[in-house]
Amino acid sequence: MKKSPWLPLGLFLLLAFCAAGIGALATTSSVDTWYPTLRKPAWNPPNWVFGPVWTLLYIAMAVAAWRVWRVGSVQAARTTFRLYGSQLALNALWSILFFGLRSPGAALLDIAVLWLVLIRILARFREVDRLAAWLWSAYVLWVSFAFLLNAAVWDLNR
Amino acid sequence: MKKSPWLPLGLFLLLAFCAAGIGALATTSSVDTWYPTLRKPAWNPPNWVFGPVWTLLYIAMAVAAWRVWRVGSVQAARTTFRLYGSQLALNALWSILFFGLRSPGAALLDIAVLWLVLIRILARFREVDRLAAWLWSAYVLWVSFAFLLNAAVWDLNR
Repeated sequence: MKKSPWLPLGLFLLLAFCAAGIGALATTSSVDTWYPTLRKPAWNPPNWVFGPVWTLLYIAMAVAAWRVWRVGSVQAARTTFRLYGSQLALNALWSILFFGLRSPGAALLDIAVLWLVLIRILARFREVDRLAAWLWSAYVLWVSFAFLLNAAVWDLNR
Repeated sequence: MKKSPWLPLGLFLLLAFCAAGIGALATTSSVDTWYPTLRKPAWNPPNWVFGPVWTLLYIAMAVAAWRVWRVGSVQAARTTFRLYGSQLALNALWSILFFGLRSPGAALLDIAVLWLVLIRILARFREVDRLAAWLWSAYVLWVSFAFLLNAAVWDLNR
């Protein structure tokens, strides 16, 4: 089944940048005030790294989901769309928990669930589209790193 | 004349992210130490805005230049490539002057020249490709804003 390509890609990107926008709103409340007061591990990257990385990852995840969404049945496309929306919600929730509520512990729980959902999605994408699986792997790798960083920050500031 | 599309797009993106990387290296030396000590205008955006915006703009400029590069003669394609490389050099030089050498005055001069080059490129792109011109306009708008911000920071910290 082939569908008109560009409008849906725009929708997947729009959804990703809605999640990014919600995350940014939650982040801005604490990133320059509360966050600098936390103890960080030595391998904590400089702050300016996160913006470019996340921007590229939001684009990568939208392109990946869109590619997988295009090729399957209507049923499969719906599942892809639902999984994509769920992980975006968990992704935005992380910023709300960590920066909005200033709770690294709750955020750690959220990112653990997010990681499991991302792995499930990766398994699905690998069956369907090679490029989508590579793009999604970049996202999984970064979230794995973010999980470790979140865990270290939580541990250092208990 | 039509050329193979994806490899050149990769090259335009690679060049953009080389400039971005040079800029990031220059920025990291001062963004968390010297930069917070500067006086800023009230309309200075929060620091985290710059990473996502620049990441999107580097992608936008690469796509725009690539689209224009594809359609013209070999002669025209060379000019596009040269202009694209020149503006990237001026773009990276800005970070070296502002953050690396901590000289807002020298950076202001650089960004003024960059703006003029970008306007010249925009005029060229408008003749060839509508989407390229829109993408380039976003870049020009942001650099216009960055020029005003640079001028304000220079003025407030003389």
